Amino acid sequence: MTRNIIVIGSGAAGMTAASAAKRSDPDASVLVFTKDEHVAYSPCAMPWAIEGKIKWEDIIMHDPLYYKKRGIEVYVKTMVTAVDSVNKTVVANMETYSYDSLIIATGGTVFVPPIDGKNLEGVFTVKTVSDGKAVQVAARNAKTVVIVGAGTIGLEMSMAFRKMGKRVIIVEMMAQVLSRVMDDDMADLVQKHLEMDGVEFIMKTSILAVRGSERVEAIVTTSGEYLCDMVVFATGVRADLSIPKLLGLDIGQFEAVLVAPTMQPYKGGCLVSDVFAAGDVVQCQSAVMDTPVMSQLGSTAVRQGIVAGMNAAGCNKVIGPVASPWVSVIGSLYVSGSGLSSYVALRSGAKIVEGKSVGFTRARYCSEKKKLVVKIIADVTSHRMIGAQIIAGEDVTGRINWLTSAMINGMTVENFIINSENAYCPLVSTVRDVVILAADDLCSRF
Amino acid sequence: MTRNIIVIGSGAAGMTAASAAKRSDPDASVLVFTKDEHVAYSPCAMPWAIEGKIKWEDIIMHDPLYYKKRGIEVYVKTMVTAVDSVNKTVVANMETYSYDSLIIATGGTVFVPPIDGKNLEGVFTVKTVSDGKAVQVAARNAKTVVIVGAGTIGLEMSMAFRKMGKRVIIVEMMAQVLSRVMDDDMADLVQKHLEMDGVEFIMKTSILAVRGSERVEAIVTTSGEYLCDMVVFATGVRADLSIPKLLGLDIGQFEAVLVAPTMQPYKGGCLVSDVFAAGDVVQCQSAVMDTPVMSQLGSTAVRQGIVAGMNAAGCNKVIGPVASPWVSVIGSLYVSGSGLSSYVALRSGAKIVEGKSVGFTRARYCSEKKKLVVKIIADVTSHRMIGAQIIAGEDVTGRINWLTSAMINGMTVENFIINSENAYCPLVSTVRDVVILAADDLCSRF
Repeated sequence: MTRNIIVIGSGAAGMTAASAAKRSDPDASVLVFTKDEHVAYSPCAMPWAIEGKIKWEDIIMHDPLYYKKRGIEVYVKTMVTAVDSVNKTVVANMETYSYDSLIIATGGTVFVPPIDGKNLEGVFTVKTVSDGKAVQVAARNAKTVVIVGAGTIGLEMSMAFRKMGKRVIIVEMMAQVLSRVMDDDMADLVQKHLEMDGVEFIMKTSILAVRGSERVEAIVTTSGEYLCDMVVFATGVRADLSIPKLLGLDIGQFEAVLVAPTMQPYKGGCLVSDVFAAGDVVQCQSAVMDTPVMSQLGSTAVRQGIVAGMNAAGCNKVIGPVASPWVSVIGSLYVSGSGLSSYVALRSGAKIVEGKSVGFTRARYCSEKKKLVVKIIADVTSHRMIGAQIIAGEDVTGRINWLTSAMINGMTVENFIINSENAYCPLVSTVRDVVILAADDLCSRF
Repeated sequence: MTRNIIVIGSGAAGMTAASAAKRSDPDASVLVFTKDEHVAYSPCAMPWAIEGKIKWEDIIMHDPLYYKKRGIEVYVKTMVTAVDSVNKTVVANMETYSYDSLIIATGGTVFVPPIDGKNLEGVFTVKTVSDGKAVQVAARNAKTVVIVGAGTIGLEMSMAFRKMGKRVIIVEMMAQVLSRVMDDDMADLVQKHLEMDGVEFIMKTSILAVRGSERVEAIVTTSGEYLCDMVVFATGVRADLSIPKLLGLDIGQFEAVLVAPTMQPYKGGCLVSDVFAAGDVVQCQSAVMDTPVMSQLGSTAVRQGIVAGMNAAGCNKVIGPVASPWVSVIGSLYVSGSGLSSYVALRSGAKIVEGKSVGFTRARYCSEKKKLVVKIIADVTSHRMIGAQIIAGEDVTGRINWLTSAMINGMTVENFIINSENAYCPLVSTVRDVVILAADDLCSRF
């Protein structure tokens, strides 16, 4: 009998799950329902699409026809209005569809504080391709753009607007940029880099209102009022729990769906066998501490989508906990991190030691070399490496993946120093990588 | 009482050991004896110094005066003529020096086959700065250069000569380039790249003689005679065992010094407590199979030098076994590997499975993206990853270090797929790295 698999959501997790399910069970019927207009696009590329470096049609990887040819039916602009977990049905477009396996990949929505004027013309979030195109059009006639939130997306967007010749003001609640994922000593380097490029920062400041008669004219904050033509909220994403709540699934402390390593959710503490959830809608287990975390990365969504899709098609795969390595291109800086920041680790009750080293990406005598700063964080008791942050002008991705591999394998700093090796050719690396020098430094501080 | 530490050899291992010893015991007397003229230079940078991209003075990191200021006496152009392990003395410059700890870092010498004409003018090896400068001068008037040996140094040198406008012929005994470290499917990509750039290859061919009256005129091989103005032997390095043999140290099957993880050698099967050896003169333990291997990498020499130097100064450090990740820049290709090649693994008696994936270094829609080929080798029984090879136009170093970390932690391919994460930003990486896709491919082939 044909297995009916229904996917709700068409982001990285949803479309990956649909493809993985179809590949695992080519006879299955796979349906995707999405309220979005575009499927399988790359939201992480948005700042560069807005800036014009990348074409919009390029960041939309596939259209529904592509999937139809592969036996996957995608219904765009389609809300799922009801889910019945007893009869195993989904209602969309006023029709009822039966499922054997249901995959929830509804992602998240940008959190916008409930302030006056938030719906004025000229106020944006940046999540979908339609959002992005609207921002691009509006920016053409704007002189001053206020970005609310100094996370990775806020900072990437700030550079996009600078490239477009706009005055850019970032309003941030915390005392540092990237506060969720990076410590202040590293984050300050990023902020200084942006300031050099003309981005203005209003720190330790909350938004009180957006002011304007027909369209936005200014933003009112705890640090005063700032005239502007556009406001972009980059204030973080919260899991979209509408479908999980219809199903009565258990929700974790980060207000996201609790899942087992099979990507199956829980209901009243019991595993639900025919439902799977993946992507920004779920809460993850940290690979470096015994604590839950939010990942909210496209790369994590894809990993989870594969497991959810395969298991929905009858496999029995599991996913490991996450260190969530991330990388962001901010101007000419490549900024990255993995595991927990010192701030988050301390807040989780850990006692930590930090090590840091500054050097170059290539041999000192290579003119192409770039400055490289590596910070590693270890747990005082176990000496395990639990976090890392890297900033450089190039080649941070491989380094952060390398450190992530060491962390998920539970390496202590001492073990890392004894056993770690790095490939060397003076044109592309150094004989003893700054990553290892940072571990050396850390070791000397216990 | 002052500890007397004597180091023989001034390459990466020797100078690192001397510095590590002095740092660990600032009161120690540290002497370095070297037959070389220059100390602490970067032999790996030689091809680009010869080509003129890097200045000679830049690849010589420090001179003896630099070390003298730091309390390390370096005697250049100085042969050690005798070592007495009972009275713990070394004879050099006809003087006798006492040691408490002796560090042997005499490296290796380029193996040149014992053929007629090998001492003719115009025949070179490339090991020291003096060698390199001589090659550079000779190349000015040369039209055709024959390189014997298609290992990393031979290939890097071939590109240097091409940049200088020379006709370049590489003569190689095996059927493929890089045969010691890379499998033929990957090596062929490198050879084709060089051929596109005009390098000529004479494969499966041995050198019989160098012919010439006063200076080299041709090379005589099993595939015929080739006219040329210069011959460079890049035929591999063999451990310089002169000092170890004076001491009667145990020699391993690769004709190099056997050492414990403390870098102490053996004599008659017993650990020698006051002698240490590091660098190309020692044989290593493989991190991926229960087998000895030669590493012969600058990065390994530095790691070993640190441990040897610290232990010579009274510490008790150990070094892990080696996967020996390496990277080479060959034209516009970055070529790298780690662990065992399939060929070497099979020869060691392993049963293996290979996985491979081809993709890009960055998102498909990034114009800066480069082609990326990743191959992973696993052991059939344990499913452990035991080797990896990567070729791309950029960013291979971090990737090979990442895979090395997974290998030295004993990860199975399945474990790697379940747990591995990669940082993603479309401008610098892909949402699911080709490294992980290669592991996916491997998994499907068991």
